[in-house]
Amino acid sequence: MAAARYKMISIPEAQATVLQHTPVLESETVPLSAALGRVLAETVTARDNLPPFPASIMDGYAVVSSDGPGEYPVVGDAHAGCSTENLSLSPGHVAYITTGAPVPPGADAVVKVEDTQPAAAAAAGGDAGSQQRRVVICKAVPAGKDIRQVGSDIEAGAVVLQAGERVGVAEVGILATVGAASLPVHRRPRLAVLSTGDEVVAPETENLGPGQIRDCNRAMLLAAAAGAGADAIDLGIARDVEGHLEGCLDKAIAAGVDVLVTSGAVSMGDRDLLKPLLERKGSVHFGRVLMKPGKPLTFATLSLPGSSRQLLVFGLPGNPVSSFVCFNLVVVPALRKMSGWAQPQLRRMQVVLTSPLKLDPERPEYHRVVLGYGRLPPACGAAAGQLGWFATSTGNQISSRLLSARSANALLELPRAEGVLEAGSTVSALLIDDLGFMPQAETDVPATEGFFA
Amino acid sequence: MAAARYKMISIPEAQATVLQHTPVLESETVPLSAALGRVLAETVTARDNLPPFPASIMDGYAVVSSDGPGEYPVVGDAHAGCSTENLSLSPGHVAYITTGAPVPPGADAVVKVEDTQPAAAAAAGGDAGSQQRRVVICKAVPAGKDIRQVGSDIEAGAVVLQAGERVGVAEVGILATVGAASLPVHRRPRLAVLSTGDEVVAPETENLGPGQIRDCNRAMLLAAAAGAGADAIDLGIARDVEGHLEGCLDKAIAAGVDVLVTSGAVSMGDRDLLKPLLERKGSVHFGRVLMKPGKPLTFATLSLPGSSRQLLVFGLPGNPVSSFVCFNLVVVPALRKMSGWAQPQLRRMQVVLTSPLKLDPERPEYHRVVLGYGRLPPACGAAAGQLGWFATSTGNQISSRLLSARSANALLELPRAEGVLEAGSTVSALLIDDLGFMPQAETDVPATEGFFA
Ligand code: NWS
Ligand code: NWS
Repeated sequence: MAAARYKMISIPEAQATVLQHTPVLESETVPLSAALGRVLAETVTARDNLPPFPASIMDGYAVVSSDGPGEYPVVGDAHAGCSTENLSLSPGHVAYITTGAPVPPGADAVVKVEDTQPAAAAAAGGDAGSQQRRVVICKAVPAGKDIRQVGSDIEAGAVVLQAGERVGVAEVGILATVGAASLPVHRRPRLAVLSTGDEVVAPETENLGPGQIRDCNRAMLLAAAAGAGADAIDLGIARDVEGHLEGCLDKAIAAGVDVLVTSGAVSMGDRDLLKPLLERKGSVHFGRVLMKPGKPLTFATLSLPGSSRQLLVFGLPGNPVSSFVCFNLVVVPALRKMSGWAQPQLRRMQVVLTSPLKLDPERPEYHRVVLGYGRLPPACGAAAGQLGWFATSTGNQISSRLLSARSANALLELPRAEGVLEAGSTVSALLIDDLGFMPQAETDVPATEGFFA
Repeated sequence: MAAARYKMISIPEAQATVLQHTPVLESETVPLSAALGRVLAETVTARDNLPPFPASIMDGYAVVSSDGPGEYPVVGDAHAGCSTENLSLSPGHVAYITTGAPVPPGADAVVKVEDTQPAAAAAAGGDAGSQQRRVVICKAVPAGKDIRQVGSDIEAGAVVLQAGERVGVAEVGILATVGAASLPVHRRPRLAVLSTGDEVVAPETENLGPGQIRDCNRAMLLAAAAGAGADAIDLGIARDVEGHLEGCLDKAIAAGVDVLVTSGAVSMGDRDLLKPLLERKGSVHFGRVLMKPGKPLTFATLSLPGSSRQLLVFGLPGNPVSSFVCFNLVVVPALRKMSGWAQPQLRRMQVVLTSPLKLDPERPEYHRVVLGYGRLPPACGAAAGQLGWFATSTGNQISSRLLSARSANALLELPRAEGVLEAGSTVSALLIDDLGFMPQAETDVPATEGFFA
């Protein structure tokens, strides 16, 4: 009963212990094309003004605003990308200009082409020899109209992104704008995944032998690691024989990973060899957590030969749901911290139950649910019909039933208590998947009144 | 003024037109390791029961439940992965068993090791010669206790995932469980990105020449495409000279992409060559949309030589914010539909404003915001202090200012109207990024009462 030696700790204590031992990884320089999803290791400033020149916002004519409406000669064209060195405007003249082109010196406003007319008389040959183009400006415009002033979008020297910011789609564009063709970001964590157990066989296995089941944790945890932005390697399955698990651990060390995630071999059986092995090779920080599922969750650190770095080892329980839940609760925040996130914890919100849920009197429980947003269904009681977030249970929550994680985008936090939480109750939920994937019919949620009118 | 020829259509009409011309892509078979994020093209059923054998939920002793507490001989060990062929239990006997091991025939319950004791007398040598192991069962258990019955998690033949479901982390595990080492999913869309304009130069450019700006749309749209699950190729920058744009379009056709996304060259200038080119080579379905930003948004389809497929062309406006917004509003849903999503539209929810926002009297507007969840700040007026979703504006919304998309995870839908929407107003928002990244301090949102108690 080796496991009983471990003090049962609380979830916040487990999470804090993990983050305490988790370093923020050093930075590396990557090309802009590889920056999506990474966290900036340095603040980025603009080297130039944007626009670098006074730029037209419209296709039309650059004018001297005090001239007002009337017919004017067109002295030239300011096209986007052209220099305006040889084009300068004096009162009584205009220049054709396109969106994004530099406004010629002398001009102080742009009149869009819709507010102009071709000069019919001139076109008909009134001034035949000179071939001079003329246009009718139909509208008076104030000085500055439809011109972006130098630096009005970004001032040279300004901070455009802070160290610690995540590079999303828009940030890639911002980085390109300021010429950050490569940039320093935090390194991605490297992680190895190992299954354990003599009963566990490769998913490819068509005909299961007696006592065998397919390994689902390994493929799942590799996917989870990729989803959390880690580079993951597959260490296969450790057999329950003396030395094999240790050999796998040595492989993880040799591969130079930052994190080893195992599943199984952490409970009370005579083949649950992980904790004693980790005790021997490093420090086990905890081996039992008061939570359901995930009670035997284990966390250790190992010194690495010739390095100041520590290997973080997460011994997840073998039941697939326990592995899934524990990965989200402790491994994801650790990977986020390593990757440079300032707020690595899972996001929490409150949601309404659509069915009664039985509570566990012994352990606080993470109940897998599908969150949706819309009119709360009739089952929600008093709140029914209001717009809000509601949680639909994934059914039987036994920790061997991975179908209870199917489509789940959140973990409800159900308190340790006797009895039942009624439908319509409000509880907290931790987000474990992008809510942009949640079920929602196009007509379920109204747009702001008048938006489509 | 070619653009004026295009009827101004509404946003819903534009979105419906795009989806109408967007096919669901055919399926392909991928290994499980490449399935994350894909959409299943076929329903998946289980070939075996899970567990395939009655399995122990605990480390302990397999017993005949009617025997009750007492000291019993241990007739053998049922380890996970072993066959129980040679182990069968008759009343008055028990077998050691580990979690996940097959329960031997004859046994009908498991007593966990914590509810047993070593048989001290026997150990002390009472029965020295036979070496027989004995154990004290301290607790009575009902029949079935701590045994997972055959098929209790998954029944052989049952549907475990439906065609059309997205493969998330848990689904990878479910697929591994049922032995789906490779599986049919919808093909990823292939997409090409092209910038246009003589003013636009590569982001690497250190010293901008007169009239030049760096190309930010291309890197941004490539990232957006990758984020939306497409395989994207980079077609560079089309110059504003006769034939170059057409050459780039031909390259996209030759590359065999499903989608071409361009930015720029769709408004009213004499160099806005895209619409006439698309008219010549295919059908332009719309060329103006009543929205801000994004008015000149253009959509066309081109027949492909020797194929029944059509190339979808999205002509996004050149202003970086317009490109960003339009990509989210029309290209993302199209890519999702292609990838097999049943509900390709962006998810909508209602949120509270934290500052007053000026409305546009001419066009409905997409205002970029950062959504957060927590106690509504004082600026929210009557609702302040309640838990909820609130929107923080990204500042000046001019469509050239890409900093207005920095950290934005939603687009507010602001109606076309005079005046101002006050802080504290409720408006609809479309989700454009994972809310799991939103700002939230650990202490901002309480867990369910009693969860950590
Ligand atoms: N006496 C006593 N016994 C106890 C506990 C206790 O308190 N006292 N606690 C419980 C709890 S309580 Mo829970 O999280 O709160 O639900 S897990 C948990 C469990 C953890 O056992 P562990 O040693 O981690 O894992 P093992 O290897 O035994 O496997 C566990 C199961 O998962 C399967 N499995 C393994 N690997 C894979 C894989 N890769 N793919 C697919 N399935 C796999 C494997 O077949 C087996 O059915 O032991 C229990 N036994
Ligand atoms: N008369 C008249 N004129 C009009 C309109 C009208 O109604 N009437 N409408 C508006 C609107 S209204 Mo809006 O979305 O509602 O805000 S866009 C819009 C705009 C669309 O113009 P377009 O032809 O698409 O793009 P162009 O190539 O002209 O560039 C546009 C801007 O973006 C920059 N740019 C281009 N490419 C890149 C790149 N890759 N990276 C970085 N910046 C880039 C480029 O320098 C330039 O400043 O024309 C305006 N002009």
